[in-house]
Formats: sequence, structure tokens, C-alpha cells
Amino acid sequence: MTVGFEVMARDGAARAGRLATAHGTIDTPAFMPVGTAATVKAMTPEAVAATGARVVLANTYHLMLRPGAERIAALGGLHRFMNWPYAILTDSGGFQVMSLASLRKITEEGAAFRSHLDGSRHLLSPERSVEIQHLLGADITMALDECTAFPSERRAVEASMELTLRWAERSRAAFVARPGHGIFGIVQGGVHADLRERAARRLVEIGFDGYAIGGLAIGEGQQTMFAMVENDVPSLPADRPRYLMGVGKPGDLVGAVKRGVDLFDCVLPTRSGRTGQAFTRTGALNLRNARHADDPGPLDAQCRCPACAGFSRAYLHHLVKAGEILGSMLLTQHNLTYYADLMSELRAAIAAGRLGAFAALPGEAE
Amino acid sequence: MTVGFEVMARDGAARAGRLATAHGTIDTPAFMPVGTAATVKAMTPEAVAATGARVVLANTYHLMLRPGAERIAALGGLHRFMNWPYAILTDSGGFQVMSLASLRKITEEGAAFRSHLDGSRHLLSPERSVEIQHLLGADITMALDECTAFPSERRAVEASMELTLRWAERSRAAFVARPGHGIFGIVQGGVHADLRERAARRLVEIGFDGYAIGGLAIGEGQQTMFAMVENDVPSLPADRPRYLMGVGKPGDLVGAVKRGVDLFDCVLPTRSGRTGQAFTRTGALNLRNARHADDPGPLDAQCRCPACAGFSRAYLHHLVKAGEILGSMLLTQHNLTYYADLMSELRAAIAAGRLGAFAALPGEAE
Repeated sequence: MTVGFEVMARDGAARAGRLATAHGTIDTPAFMPVGTAATVKAMTPEAVAATGARVVLANTYHLMLRPGAERIAALGGLHRFMNWPYAILTDSGGFQVMSLASLRKITEEGAAFRSHLDGSRHLLSPERSVEIQHLLGADITMALDECTAFPSERRAVEASMELTLRWAERSRAAFVARPGHGIFGIVQGGVHADLRERAARRLVEIGFDGYAIGGLAIGEGQQTMFAMVENDVPSLPADRPRYLMGVGKPGDLVGAVKRGVDLFDCVLPTRSGRTGQAFTRTGALNLRNARHADDPGPLDAQCRCPACAGFSRAYLHHLVKAGEILGSMLLTQHNLTYYADLMSELRAAIAAGRLGAFAALPGEAE
Repeated sequence: MTVGFEVMARDGAARAGRLATAHGTIDTPAFMPVGTAATVKAMTPEAVAATGARVVLANTYHLMLRPGAERIAALGGLHRFMNWPYAILTDSGGFQVMSLASLRKITEEGAAFRSHLDGSRHLLSPERSVEIQHLLGADITMALDECTAFPSERRAVEASMELTLRWAERSRAAFVARPGHGIFGIVQGGVHADLRERAARRLVEIGFDGYAIGGLAIGEGQQTMFAMVENDVPSLPADRPRYLMGVGKPGDLVGAVKRGVDLFDCVLPTRSGRTGQAFTRTGALNLRNARHADDPGPLDAQCRCPACAGFSRAYLHHLVKAGEILGSMLLTQHNLTYYADLMSELRAAIAAGRLGAFAALPGEAE
């Protein structure tokens, strides 16, 4: 039952592991590309897999509204629907209810809201969120949580965290155990170390298959985020995966891995790819910049991706300037390859016991 | 020197042939996907080649304005720039000057206009058009022509056709012969059979490596278009390729092949792919239609393309409704595969002498 997790090597607080799911094994630390609406934007599933990714994140909020969880279940589940044979983690929907839906109202029962697409009314309770994720066929289900805005008053953060814990208990109870499938609880508590510790302890008492460090990367800054990760990790079981939600820049990933995080997701590499930004081993590039217009060189001479193998910076500049879809496709594939290779290099550094010397990326603190 | 053309089989007026260029051989009849701005929209070059296409069309007007012909030449030419190893035909730019540019003015010298991008002034003369196409490295260069609007008064059509003939002579003179590279002249004359015959005869006197049937598919209707093709073909040399510009729907292609045409280009399969339209062996589909929402079947059960191999109509409907780039990618790949396979089936029918029985497509006259 549940998802397997084996720590293969340690280096300081960091670990290299293997997360076994019903849809394959994921080498950790791992970055999960975001496939919001059952597609990693501008990528075929084959191209996503070619980057090295073996797990993607899909958004419960988006999929429950369109095309609908019951519809996807009737079509054989999300893996078949989007033709992705590897693992899928679904979020709980809570975060997007707060950021996208209108007329939202949080009660003890759950999050009531109107769809941003058609105004239809919905209630996302812990039980319904877990049911939707089951209908989608997620390998990893996330417990419904409330992500408190930053900054918020401590009293509000505490009340929200306590609600999240009660929802966590209900989510856990609603989860139907199946081999290779697991449910993760989410630590909230804002930037208050004691609240986060309380949340982590309570989640461990409830007992989850993995633990997410939530409510961060929403404006508190990298230093505070790292402090909260350092605060939370010791309260979480050493034999279970840790997932830092919504993070982040390359330097964020390096720093969080050093502090014991195993899983990440972020829209940054995909969204950046669609706005002309590329991550490279020599720093980030804005392909809109005219200095690339005559440059015959690749984005990153050390990169193995199709964008670097076949195309010049001059061509990518042209595609971005002309608003061509191929620009989004190639830059997304490059950025996801960059992220996948960064995680691969981090795993190798942990295995070799040389993570401490892992070079910071240009312009990135860690 | 020039491009080679060998007729391998005939069936009525139709022929199956091989067009040999500096960048590979094209089995004809062939459809050329349109790669306006040095990219077939929403497709990697690898994916274009996987459809079976061995030649694409690129637009001189777009490329001269952005990124510029001299820039592409400095970067090693259009093939390297867009990473397309097979043949490229470039249009002359004349058609788009008339449809896109502002403050355009046609004189004996050429077409003066302002860029639709930045308002800059340009003069596209026959000599400059041919020079640009040389800088791009086109395997097949098109002579500069004026495509008369439909309908137009006969007197205007005749004057325009005569100008096109004078430009054709200047284009031919400006063309630098190189092995595997050729220049095609363009028959104009609107829907006036005698004007078109005069144009065709004069072009043959000048002597081109291939001949385009131009000025059609601009509102005159399929029946008139076929009548003009039937009118023009006997005036063109049997040993040189014939190219019907800007055509068309599947039924247009079948009908024109039967009347002796070897080459086609049209934005229809690519543009349709980006607006949720798919061509299938059972007729055209609008993927926006709600009837596809729960359909687990492929677009076309007989199709070999990745969209049909891996994805349901339900998923494609979802992608189109959600405005996802992957929808454009998959539908474009499907449509171009459909077009490539249609041409392949036409070639096989000609070789087997059974073109007369070639089935009309659902809902398509031919």
C-alpha cells in the first residue's frame, strides 16, 4: 500500500531517495513540472518525459471545473486522458480557490466558491477534494489546506492553521488507500516557527505518506523561506518524502535540497518559457533582448535539450519577438530540461557527499 | 543546375513525379506546409518532417521585415536558421505586400510599401525579391508577381498580368543559377482564359524551372478555379512541375491533381489546427463542439499521427476549450499528416492507374 520511499544517500540534511508510485519510481530530489489543465503548457507528454521528468503536478481546481473529475474518471483517469504514463501529484484545489475563484467563503465545512469560468457554485470540502483526486487517479493526493496570505496577523494565521489541521484529519480519513498511491499532509503556520512546529507534529500524529511544507514562496523572501524549511524539517519523519510547495528559482531549489527537501513544483520554468526567459548554466536570459538577434550560439552550450541542439539564440529571439508558438515550445523544453538536470546534478552531489561544494548559480543565493 | 523533375507515372492529366532540389527530393504531387515566419506554426521541424513533408513554404514579405534577409544569410541561411534540412520554397512577397502592408504602391519598378510591423519603408522590386530569396537560400524561388484582386475589371487584370510578365522577365534575369535551385514563373490573368493563356505562353518563352498557377483561390469558387487549371495546364511544359498557389481544401487538391497539378501550399491545415478544426477520413470536425466532450475515440482511427495514436477527441476538445497550446500542436500535426497522407494516396493512385476512381472526400467536391 501507499507510496514507497527509500533514502539512498545523505549529505548533511539533504538526502537522495527513490519514491515508488503506481506509475513508476521518481529519483529525489525531484522537480515536478506543472500541468495545470491536464497539460504541461506547450509540451507534448513525450517531450516532458524527454526532459527527464517522471512526475507532473495537475491542479484539482482547474480540472474539477473543466473538464470535470467525473468526466476524466469515465475516460479512464487523468493518466490516460493526458497520455502521461508516469506519476501524477494533484494539489488539493485550496490554493487556487483562494487565488482564482470569485465569491469564495471558507467555513468549517470547506471552501465555497464560484467558478472563474462560468460562475457556477461549488463546495470544495476535504472529502470532496480527496474524492476528486481519487477520480483523477492521482498517485499522490494532497490534503485540503488553506494557504494563509502573507503577511497576515498571527491570530489569523493560527486559526487558519488549526482549520487546515482539522481538514487534514478529514482528508486523511477520506483517502482510500491503494497500492502505489499516497496522501500528503501540508504544514501551514505562515512565518511563525512555533505554529509551524505545532502543525507538523499534529500532521505526524495523524500520519501521512509524505509531508508538504506549505504557505511559503508567497512574498516572505528567500531567507525567511529557508528559515521555515529549517524549522519544519526536524519535525517531519526522516523516512517520508518532504515537498516544498510552489518553489522555485534554481537557487531556491539548491538551498532547500541542502536543507532536506525532496520534492518541488513551480510554474517558473514553464511560464518563463512562454515569456521568453531561459535558465542557463551562465545565468538567466531574456530572449526578447536585441543582443541575441545575431547570436549564432545555443542558449546553453552544455545543455542536451532539442532547443540547444538545433537552434541559435538568434532564432529563438526571432520566435519570441514574432510571438511564435514554437518559441514557447522550445524555451519550455529547455527550461524543464535545465531544472531536471539541476536536480540530477544535486542527486549526484548528495550521493558523492559533495553537496556542500555544489556551486551556487549565477545571480542566485542559496 | 536547376531543380530536377522526372515524371514517373501518368494517369489522365495527372502525374506522379520526383522533384530534386539541393535539399532532397520531393515526391509529387506534394503539399507544402506554410512556415510563414521561418516556423510552421506550433510545430517543431522534426514534427513537420514526421508528417512526411519534405518541402515547406516560407514568406519573403515576413522574413524581409523580421528578422531580415541579410541577417538570416549571415546566420547561414534559412535552412540552418529554422533547422529544416529539407527543401524550402519561398514566395516572392508580392501577395503579402498587397494583403498586409500599408501605403503600398505598385509602379513599374516594383511594390513600394510600409511595414505592417514598424512603418518602415521598403521597395520590393523583382530584383530585390529574387535577391532576398537568394539570401534566404530558397531551393525554389518565385518570380515577383502581382496577384490581381477578384473580382477586377478585365482591363485592370490585363494590365496587371502584363506587369507581372515584365517582372517575370526581370526576376528570371536576376536569378543566380545554382545546382539544385530553381525559379518558377507565375501565370496570372484572373479568370480570363485568354489572358492566362497569353501569360503562360510568354512565361514559357522566358523559360522557368517550374510554373505556378497563380491568382486563384481568392473568391472565384472551386468550379472556376478548376476551369482555369484546365485552361492553363496545356500551355505549360509537360516536363516541368506545376504549382497551384494557395490551394486548398482536400477536395481542391484531389481535383487539381486530377487536372495535372504537382505542388500545393495553403495555410488551411495549419490555421485550422490552431482554431480547433481537424480534417479526417470521415469529414471535417470542429473540436469545440460539445459532442466531443466525452468521446474516448481518436480523431481518425486510420491516422498514424501522434494526436490520433495517443489522445482522445475528449482530450482534444478539452485542450481547445481551455485554449491550451498543446491543442494547436496536436491538431496541426494531425492536419498536416492528413494532408501528407492524402498526397501519398494520390501518388499511389496515379502509379496504379486508378486515380479516376479515387474517392471524393466527404462533403468535398472535386
